[in-house]
Amino acid sequence: MIVVLKPNYQEAQLNSLRKWLKSLSIDIQVNEGHSQTVLGLLGDTTTLDSDLIRALEFVESVTQVQEPYKKANRKFHPDDTIVRVGEVEIGGGSVTIIAGPCSVESPDQLCSIAQSVKAAGAQLLRGGAFKPRTSPYAFQGMRGRGIELLLEARKLTGLPIVTEIMDLSQLDLFAEVDVIQVGARNMQNFEMLKELGKSDKPILLKRGLSSTIQELLMSAEYIMSGGNSNVILCERGIRTFETATRNTFDLSAIPVVKELAHLPIIADPSHATGFSKYVAPMALAAVAAGADGLIIEVHNDPPHAMCDGIQSLTPGDFAELATRIRATAPYAYRRGAEGGTNL
Amino acid sequence: MIVVLKPNYQEAQLNSLRKWLKSLSIDIQVNEGHSQTVLGLLGDTTTLDSDLIRALEFVESVTQVQEPYKKANRKFHPDDTIVRVGEVEIGGGSVTIIAGPCSVESPDQLCSIAQSVKAAGAQLLRGGAFKPRTSPYAFQGMRGRGIELLLEARKLTGLPIVTEIMDLSQLDLFAEVDVIQVGARNMQNFEMLKELGKSDKPILLKRGLSSTIQELLMSAEYIMSGGNSNVILCERGIRTFETATRNTFDLSAIPVVKELAHLPIIADPSHATGFSKYVAPMALAAVAAGADGLIIEVHNDPPHAMCDGIQSLTPGDFAELATRIRATAPYAYRRGAEGGTNL
Amino acid sequence: MIVVLKPNYQEAQLNSLRKWLKSLSIDIQVNEGHSQTVLGLLGDTTTLDSDLIRALEFVESVTQVQEPYKKANRKFHPDDTIVRVGEVEIGGGSVTIIAGPCSVESPDQLCSIAQSVKAAGAQLLRGGAFKPRTSPYAFQGMRGRGIELLLEARKLTGLPIVTEIMDLSQLDLFAEVDVIQVGARNMQNFEMLKELGKSDKPILLKRGLSSTIQELLMSAEYIMSGGNSNVILCERGIRTFETATRNTFDLSAIPVVKELAHLPIIADPSHATGFSKYVAPMALAAVAAGADGLIIEVHNDPPHAMCDGIQSLTPGDFAELATRIRATAPYAYRRGAEGGTNL
Amino acid sequence: MIVVLKPNYQEAQLNSLRKWLKSLSIDIQVNEGHSQTVLGLLGDTTTLDSDLIRALEFVESVTQVQEPYKKANRKFHPDDTIVRVGEVEIGGGSVTIIAGPCSVESPDQLCSIAQSVKAAGAQLLRGGAFKPRTSPYAFQGMRGRGIELLLEARKLTGLPIVTEIMDLSQLDLFAEVDVIQVGARNMQNFEMLKELGKSDKPILLKRGLSSTIQELLMSAEYIMSGGNSNVILCERGIRTFETATRNTFDLSAIPVVKELAHLPIIADPSHATGFSKYVAPMALAAVAAGADGLIIEVHNDPPHAMCDGIQSLTPGDFAELATRIRATAPYAYRRGAEGGTNL
Repeated sequence: MIVVLKPNYQEAQLNSLRKWLKSLSIDIQVNEGHSQTVLGLLGDTTTLDSDLIRALEFVESVTQVQEPYKKANRKFHPDDTIVRVGEVEIGGGSVTIIAGPCSVESPDQLCSIAQSVKAAGAQLLRGGAFKPRTSPYAFQGMRGRGIELLLEARKLTGLPIVTEIMDLSQLDLFAEVDVIQVGARNMQNFEMLKELGKSDKPILLKRGLSSTIQELLMSAEYIMSGGNSNVILCERGIRTFETATRNTFDLSAIPVVKELAHLPIIADPSHATGFSKYVAPMALAAVAAGADGLIIEVHNDPPHAMCDGIQSLTPGDFAELATRIRATAPYAYRRGAEGGTNL
Repeated sequence: MIVVLKPNYQEAQLNSLRKWLKSLSIDIQVNEGHSQTVLGLLGDTTTLDSDLIRALEFVESVTQVQEPYKKANRKFHPDDTIVRVGEVEIGGGSVTIIAGPCSVESPDQLCSIAQSVKAAGAQLLRGGAFKPRTSPYAFQGMRGRGIELLLEARKLTGLPIVTEIMDLSQLDLFAEVDVIQVGARNMQNFEMLKELGKSDKPILLKRGLSSTIQELLMSAEYIMSGGNSNVILCERGIRTFETATRNTFDLSAIPVVKELAHLPIIADPSHATGFSKYVAPMALAAVAAGADGLIIEVHNDPPHAMCDGIQSLTPGDFAELATRIRATAPYAYRRGAEGGTNL
Repeated sequence: MIVVLKPNYQEAQLNSLRKWLKSLSIDIQVNEGHSQTVLGLLGDTTTLDSDLIRALEFVESVTQVQEPYKKANRKFHPDDTIVRVGEVEIGGGSVTIIAGPCSVESPDQLCSIAQSVKAAGAQLLRGGAFKPRTSPYAFQGMRGRGIELLLEARKLTGLPIVTEIMDLSQLDLFAEVDVIQVGARNMQNFEMLKELGKSDKPILLKRGLSSTIQELLMSAEYIMSGGNSNVILCERGIRTFETATRNTFDLSAIPVVKELAHLPIIADPSHATGFSKYVAPMALAAVAAGADGLIIEVHNDPPHAMCDGIQSLTPGDFAELATRIRATAPYAYRRGAEGGTNL
Repeated sequence: MIVVLKPNYQEAQLNSLRKWLKSLSIDIQVNEGHSQTVLGLLGDTTTLDSDLIRALEFVESVTQVQEPYKKANRKFHPDDTIVRVGEVEIGGGSVTIIAGPCSVESPDQLCSIAQSVKAAGAQLLRGGAFKPRTSPYAFQGMRGRGIELLLEARKLTGLPIVTEIMDLSQLDLFAEVDVIQVGARNMQNFEMLKELGKSDKPILLKRGLSSTIQELLMSAEYIMSGGNSNVILCERGIRTFETATRNTFDLSAIPVVKELAHLPIIADPSHATGFSKYVAPMALAAVAAGADGLIIEVHNDPPHAMCDGIQSLTPGDFAELATRIRATAPYAYRRGAEGGTNL
């Protein structure tokens, strides 16, 4: 951590800081510049709250050198983490496809889609039981009943299921769910992250609409610091000024996360773009950039979907896309053992 | 609602849409343009889920004309809502000052600050018991004990208290709290909003970092549609590319909200700017723009604050600012009876 | 164009609008809703200035249905435009590679790089003679001398050259240049766009840092409405809150532009990410998404580059990447004849 | 400047950097941390191009401690700069009002507005002769004839005039203009900034839509490093995801600029909000935040304005607002001699 002092600081202030940091096993090295004094904080500063330093009256600015996350950090865990869901492995060079409807709507709808996506090669089934909707007047999901239907679809197809939790009070209903999804709006629901850290169930953690990649990794760190390292990250678009797509798909997050962390990262082209017509090109782009998987919305009857139908593919389109994903995967970028500069 | 059809739509598709909308008491008026057909949907479309229309294969785009919120909408409730907290009135032309520490840290700290801010003219006491922190390694608040200390400070000073809830499981601890704050990260925690809608306690709803003003109003609508109309909105900065301040203080949200909704809106210059040195000018600016109040962080010993000390004023600075706020208030912008174009 | 009127509009106001629009050959169809009146403007509204309507006192909002660009619009020109630069064709299904140094620094540097990138398969040579730098104290480019060196490198290698113009006063120096680049900061330099519209030289138009895709197409329209339809668009990253990369690479712009316009669009992973370590994955992603080409910075000695060395590849890395680009290209997404929903 | 090295750097690399920096009179102090080596660069690094360091293979990151601007920097020029335009002083504690139409449309329109705004207390007259419009089909301004009309209006009223230059080829036409405006789209037109730096005419430099405050100050530095220190900065809104206003008015830029630089800064509530109904509250807010002035659009007949009428006040509204601005000004925030933490 680098601390720049204000020009008029007092020696006594610096000594008191030095004493406090010493108690945390952190040393200070002082650089007297021609116009300013700069401190180098030497030691393990990962868990030091930089805001405490920044708040000191005689401090001008603080720059973190070490990443503020440890358990997610690739520096301390150079190998890719592989998250296992039943027999499926997410991470480590394969491209896992998760597919299914935006919302669970009925037994028929779900079973039909589950069978289609399985036939097309999907390895996990997704489906929303609890739906976060901007309007209180919009369909809020089938809730507990939706989870029952997902479990039935799993029995039918053998596909493990992924579904979103919206509040900790729902946790008991997720006992049989294979992968618990934390949605973009809950990425910084820290009480939820802590609780999920106590489980060993795989967690699909979606990036928040306005969250930086570092914040995404800090939220993974919340789960991991509780003891659960089965975290799958997901890039699903960030909010910017551009309105031609629902969000802006930040595909660069894939190589950035691969460099900084050892966790698998998948991509969600359906939510990122918001239009089914852009799902195929952006799914292929995500694969080429090195994503460990894709999560794609599929609907057997898009016009009658209860929500988000506009971004869902038909089963036929999905099957065609899955074929192309498999064809593209061998040509995808993979990070070399030496890190990012290698092809 | 305006629906633009794709050039090659089928008459049968249009008829099927017409039939469905008729069942919702919505009529269609068809405009045949020279290159495109445009539908006007006539009737109450407030609670119609526009995504269902947008998902139709033969639809090119949908534009909402009516605001998708009803209870918060000034059109249906032209007078300002005043939220009462004990004897304090928020809204309706006054400027309410809420002040206190970022985090509750100890009985001494809290009582000392509470007495200072009361003496300086604050009408409510704020203080964080549960703290949303980006890092799992940072101080997470005194939690239940923090709320006890706030209640003691209320007894001492008579100031009603405002504090943040982070998860519904904490709700019982808020039974005696005067105003429950929903933080920026929970603005779209819809399960929480619904639950708070069942209470009649005043809710301080902070705008999310990347939430539009319309989304803020939709979240208020969640609370109000449950039956609780004691909602106080709060502008606290949005996330943009600018890094000179922690967030970008979107003060225009004040006149925009005043035009669209009847709820009071206050401003938080401490979180919006992130630096104590910018709190005073931005507090005065918020008052001039017509804010119904301010929420300001005050700390008796900023350098030792457990969090966010960098954005806290000292009690002396706060007292001086409170005096200036009172001096500025009579010159503040107030929306005329005729609406926004009047001075 | 859809115009929503304020509830209290006067019939006389509407008549006067009708009369004015009639003079522009535009008809009005009136929809009387239950709470609002909505007008459909029928006729060619492409060149109607919607701000004039929006400014009317009795108008609440205006929504454009027709795109405000004509010459760039795929609706009126369904086939892909192919821009020819010597024997190279940009657009129409191929992936053109443009490569070279950020800045032209010396004859040796430029010739060495030009020969390397040619050997690796690049079809055009890029290099900056005039450099837009944020600081007046940073290297500003070799200017006129830089263009001379580029022309010499073309003679040596046969590669056509692409270089950026910063001000119209430099135009004479570009007489022999094959492709004139308009940089991101000049995307809305309308006087420059108009002047370049009088030429028939290919123009490489880069998207501005905070420009929407529609604004990019409007800037292309400026050039095209002057008579020059040899416009190549370029996505090079937009400015968002994320700081892990220099900009946020909006790859979705590729399928969006392909849908809306008939012009070729290439991608610049060097400027978009700002780090050489992210260039390879994002170049492959751009190809998979359907880009018509790539523009990549290559430097023979990155550490000593005068500017932007951090985002430049070495010739060896570039050669390896070029091989992978060619391997990926056959698997790239291509828009079907029926439009975007086909794979 | 703080330079963090990669863990595996070579001593020879560090020595070669040390030698190069020594030639620039910059010393290196080395801090050996427990996991990384950090360099402090001591000396005047203002004009050192940090990208050159960042590009070195063995460097992980670079943090600038010194601001990269000198002439605009308040540290080296603690007193407020006052820019004089005839008898009007901009900066130093007063609130200057600049008003006039968006576009110059006719002699009658301009004279009528000029007389109205003068009567209401405006001290300078603004009006657009060259108009940057997103669409090539929109009104582009009266150009040279518009400047003639502005000069006539100045003769009539005595008000100095402010008008925007769009390209250097127009510079001769600005010989008699009092203040040359550089619009948001040209804030980083570096060739233009350099040329304007050779003049001693006051320059009104508007912040770019996606420019940081530091970039605004760097653009001012371009003008000042050429010898012209008569620079007036202008906050006019930045581009964000919020669409309720045309741009997001970043009023915090006012106290930030006041802290970092000594130049006057004014605010443009018309362009920042895009709606006349929001101009009054945001004008008062800007004054309260400490702005040195305001630039406001006024139109005698908003519905028929050729452009931007929607954000223009009527002369009557403007007169009322001017009265309120004068009433608010004495209560505005002013930075103390000790800097930002004082009220």
